[in-house]
Amino acid sequence: MEGIWIWLTVIVAILGIGVAAYFAWWVTKQKEGDKVAVIAKAIREGASAFLGREYKLLAIFVAVVFIILTVVPSLGWRVGVTFLFGAITSGLSGFIGMKIATNSNSRTATAAEKSLNSGLKVAFRAGSVMGLSVVSIGLLGLSILFLAFYNTDQFLAIIPAYGFGASTVAIFSRVGGGIFTKAADTGADIVGKVEQNIPEDDPRNAAVIADCVGDNVGDVAGMGADLFESYVDSIIATVTLSAVALIAGESGTTLVGSKELACVLPMLIAGAGIIASLIGIFLVRVGEKLQMTALLNALRKGTWSAAILAAIFAFLIVWFLDVNLNIFWAILSGLVAGVLIGESTNYYTSYVYNPTKNVSKSGQTGAATVIISGFANGLMSTLPPVVIVGIAILLAHYFGGVYGVAIAGVGMLATLGIQDATDAYGPIADNAGGLVEMSGLPHEIRDRTDALDSLGNTTAATGKGFAVGSAALTSLALLLSYTQAVGLKADEVNLLDANIIVGLFLGALLPAVFCALTMNAVGKTGYSIVNEVRRQFKEIPGLLEGKAKADYKRCVDICTRDSLKEMILPGVITVLSPIVIGFVLGKQGLAGFLTGSTVVGFILAITFSNAGGSWDNAKKYVETGAFGGKGSDTHKSTVIGDTVGDPMKDTSGPALNIMIKLASIIAVVLAPVIANFTGLF
Amino acid sequence: MEGIWIWLTVIVAILGIGVAAYFAWWVTKQKEGDKVAVIAKAIREGASAFLGREYKLLAIFVAVVFIILTVVPSLGWRVGVTFLFGAITSGLSGFIGMKIATNSNSRTATAAEKSLNSGLKVAFRAGSVMGLSVVSIGLLGLSILFLAFYNTDQFLAIIPAYGFGASTVAIFSRVGGGIFTKAADTGADIVGKVEQNIPEDDPRNAAVIADCVGDNVGDVAGMGADLFESYVDSIIATVTLSAVALIAGESGTTLVGSKELACVLPMLIAGAGIIASLIGIFLVRVGEKLQMTALLNALRKGTWSAAILAAIFAFLIVWFLDVNLNIFWAILSGLVAGVLIGESTNYYTSYVYNPTKNVSKSGQTGAATVIISGFANGLMSTLPPVVIVGIAILLAHYFGGVYGVAIAGVGMLATLGIQDATDAYGPIADNAGGLVEMSGLPHEIRDRTDALDSLGNTTAATGKGFAVGSAALTSLALLLSYTQAVGLKADEVNLLDANIIVGLFLGALLPAVFCALTMNAVGKTGYSIVNEVRRQFKEIPGLLEGKAKADYKRCVDICTRDSLKEMILPGVITVLSPIVIGFVLGKQGLAGFLTGSTVVGFILAITFSNAGGSWDNAKKYVETGAFGGKGSDTHKSTVIGDTVGDPMKDTSGPALNIMIKLASIIAVVLAPVIANFTGLF
Repeated sequence: MEGIWIWLTVIVAILGIGVAAYFAWWVTKQKEGDKVAVIAKAIREGASAFLGREYKLLAIFVAVVFIILTVVPSLGWRVGVTFLFGAITSGLSGFIGMKIATNSNSRTATAAEKSLNSGLKVAFRAGSVMGLSVVSIGLLGLSILFLAFYNTDQFLAIIPAYGFGASTVAIFSRVGGGIFTKAADTGADIVGKVEQNIPEDDPRNAAVIADCVGDNVGDVAGMGADLFESYVDSIIATVTLSAVALIAGESGTTLVGSKELACVLPMLIAGAGIIASLIGIFLVRVGEKLQMTALLNALRKGTWSAAILAAIFAFLIVWFLDVNLNIFWAILSGLVAGVLIGESTNYYTSYVYNPTKNVSKSGQTGAATVIISGFANGLMSTLPPVVIVGIAILLAHYFGGVYGVAIAGVGMLATLGIQDATDAYGPIADNAGGLVEMSGLPHEIRDRTDALDSLGNTTAATGKGFAVGSAALTSLALLLSYTQAVGLKADEVNLLDANIIVGLFLGALLPAVFCALTMNAVGKTGYSIVNEVRRQFKEIPGLLEGKAKADYKRCVDICTRDSLKEMILPGVITVLSPIVIGFVLGKQGLAGFLTGSTVVGFILAITFSNAGGSWDNAKKYVETGAFGGKGSDTHKSTVIGDTVGDPMKDTSGPALNIMIKLASIIAVVLAPVIANFTGLF
Repeated sequence: MEGIWIWLTVIVAILGIGVAAYFAWWVTKQKEGDKVAVIAKAIREGASAFLGREYKLLAIFVAVVFIILTVVPSLGWRVGVTFLFGAITSGLSGFIGMKIATNSNSRTATAAEKSLNSGLKVAFRAGSVMGLSVVSIGLLGLSILFLAFYNTDQFLAIIPAYGFGASTVAIFSRVGGGIFTKAADTGADIVGKVEQNIPEDDPRNAAVIADCVGDNVGDVAGMGADLFESYVDSIIATVTLSAVALIAGESGTTLVGSKELACVLPMLIAGAGIIASLIGIFLVRVGEKLQMTALLNALRKGTWSAAILAAIFAFLIVWFLDVNLNIFWAILSGLVAGVLIGESTNYYTSYVYNPTKNVSKSGQTGAATVIISGFANGLMSTLPPVVIVGIAILLAHYFGGVYGVAIAGVGMLATLGIQDATDAYGPIADNAGGLVEMSGLPHEIRDRTDALDSLGNTTAATGKGFAVGSAALTSLALLLSYTQAVGLKADEVNLLDANIIVGLFLGALLPAVFCALTMNAVGKTGYSIVNEVRRQFKEIPGLLEGKAKADYKRCVDICTRDSLKEMILPGVITVLSPIVIGFVLGKQGLAGFLTGSTVVGFILAITFSNAGGSWDNAKKYVETGAFGGKGSDTHKSTVIGDTVGDPMKDTSGPALNIMIKLASIIAVVLAPVIANFTGLF
């Protein structure tokens, strides 16, 4: 009856939602300047319209999958309903994030008129709304499923469907929002910064509103759905391996007292992480010094406190519930690995360090060398995360077997509440900066929002490290749970089997094709935006002189239409390919496929994120005055690098994290169907 | 006593060497114009100096490895000597290629003064010298080893050392030569084409001679060593699996009559390929029409005839030696897969088709979109090769088990003699064009050499397809032969094992780090060249006006010094990592490592080669007048794309093919040492 502890997670989740609601109420109570309010309204409307249309499209897809899951005899209505529940709660997380972000950007701008600290407070509390909502809704959803279905003997086959629903919404949201935001961004940059030499967020640029809308639907709503699925998938993966927790571990000793406790444990750890995050969030405070270090320290105090508290709480839970201490070490391996990956990401992407400084330096010999050195930097940056994850896997496996690997993933994401808060506040500050620029407010305010935004980039880089690291662990755990669900023995998933080898190759193909499609989608949509902005400069008399107004709505519409069209193919391919592989190459081939996509997806995700981050900051470094500063040829070269990196770091790269888990979780959900397939060969 | 047939391969190999020698004699007898002879001499000296210094460095490394192999008790002097023999013959292949290329570039230029056909004849015969040398020396070397060591019971443990030697020399030659050629090329392009707006190969550019030297040491000598190792490794992989040929196949029937025959068979197939290549080479002839299609058809006639003849010969051999017909089908799967991969490479990289046309088109919105679309195109281009290789593996495995997979790789490379000839003649024509430009010969001659060069690019793209496809098959076969050599059973190489999973991740890391290092090496060396060429334009009065002479030697020296320095780290990492992994993660972890590096290396190799090829041709398409033509902003954007692609397609990408096989063959060679290691975890 250890299931009783689930009520604790319910209480924690409701507490988290309560605090999020309080922050939301507080944020909307803040003052909103008149000038910025007008523009903010346009952004809000654009974002709402996009999300409305996106969710309508998604509803159709989700409905079709729901029906299929429900009618397939070996799955059934419980699986269907759980899938639906996952999709809806995931969509809700994204929606809440977008709503609060579009209502706080203007308020952040207005608060920044008063002081930096006020600006930070509004933006960070708004970010916290999303961070807390994501984790609390996720945990509440899983707790409800536990209460509803644990006593049916189908529970372990039902629960993955929640992750399937969440990941499905996440991949479309990430890709759709990602295409929108980066097409608008690159489109605005290419014509604005490169061709017309006007500043970022200049109101004469017809794509600026679309760019701001993009921040909200991509970097906020898309990321919300993304982190939601990371969070719930890591817990689900652990739950599905609960059966082996009893006997696993290299030592062969009992790890967790009962199967029921092994199910509840990851949720309790996650709940402890929410409490730790709440405390961390309340610790974030900053004085009125416009210094990066002071700002960064304020946020670091919050995230580090949360991480340490989460570790202490995890230890107490393990100790109190009489779980083998080895499980605590597995959790700690994950938590520490996450922090280390975050630091390595920071090293490769921040311009404080040599790798990114070298990218800036290579701008002196033109754009081509910027691309080569930034891309090489991204490839090189895979070294620490892969080694760290490798060591974490070995340790977690040593301490807790496959269950240990899974719960290490939960440990890594324990403090996601505050991590996500520091992630989400970035685009809010970015938007606020855009509003300041567009409404012609004084420059010192822009400097303040820039400081906030720049800080957001650093914390976002760390957050991406967590996301990618946990994706590898979770996907691996799901792969193991898949092999158990279809009854594959060790000698059946061997590297000498032709179907497994071919599966590996085809799995490796998926991330490559996925990246190609999403990058091309940004390219194509961006191309339309460039032509539209160019057209407006040409056809609207007086626009460049600032005497006429640009037609912003047109760019928003083009982005909405094109990005929704372009998101379909990569999403559908990801959902269908594990199914097709399962039928063609059989359950063994599918195991190879999942392994291939996880390994290659992991490498490409890090490469894309960090190359993109490095190009972005290499440009920022030149803007601080290095190698000729703003307006120099070196600057122009680094702007090209930044533009190339945009779709890589904000569309393709992060979507890969979802992709590898989605493929694995589909395999787990469909295990009862696939279990008897040995393939056509 | 089927070993008697080995004398047939000896005769064929000697015949091949004889024809190569005749062609070499014929080429050096051709007229060499006075003007071009002077410049050719400078190129020849630069190339010889580089190769001399490179081989000296390599000699040290090879000597160290030789001593280690000889003194380790479980390996011994036979392994050491075989390694040495492989290294020397590989170096010899590169040296012959470089010698003939640097002696035929001027003669091609002079012959092109007479007619296009004369130019083609000289360049193609020179290319054939290298093509025939590579395959004939390789086959002769293997035949000698068979005669010397087959009767020792160690034979299967000795023969991989030949591949180890060949691959070691190849990886350093490919990387060293690749850095040289691309650093010189990008350096020359960035200052010449982008900054100073002077044409390619303009004598005012201080890096032009270095660029020409680079073609010979990278695209000729480096490629020679590269293809040599592909060829011998594919045969070796098959030989090492000869023991299982007796009973393999899904049907469980006997495939090859005896183990001895299973060893000799791949060499006989290779010998048949040499005869087919010889016939194909003599069929290449062209009329005096300056048309791409006529030229292309002439070469295609040669390669297609060779492929068909090779298939027929293979059938006759299989039939005559009473081998199971299934083996013929396995060989044919490889041969056909190679042709199809070549065609798909052509589709993604030739500007006749949409993918590359779209890259050109995206140049209208700047360099950033060229990079995004070209890179996306490269990623997408992995689809057909991976699917084709996947099907080939399934078919070959179905027909011939693991032996079938290995011999499919031999089938794919059967016609390497003529493939390599069409590859090698490209850089010779390229060099001839440079000589024409530098010595101020009339423009119609440059048009002729351009036509030859352009054709060379197309055939080189096809050749790269073969190389990468065979690399995947060979590496896989070596992996299987490694697991047998260390005695790993199916249930020991399973995807549920933590060491194997971590090995997979670390293996996936190797190609990424390798690419990062080599790209950065080109970037760094290119940076030095750019600064040197800029310095000369600034400090040598009258240089830009053509009144003063550039200091070419300085650029050649910088390239030589830097590229030799930079080649060491990536080469050493590749050699050491399988050894380190074997000791740390044990023999199982190493199996995972090899799988990871093969899969990711395959994906990255295709992406890099095809993205680079596509950027190159997108630029060429604009130069034909599309989207504004030469000198337009679109053209400038595509030149940046071409520059980015240079190190990807000619340094990192092709070296990956060697890397994945080198890692595998080291594992096979060290199998007796590693067999008892289960790792530290």
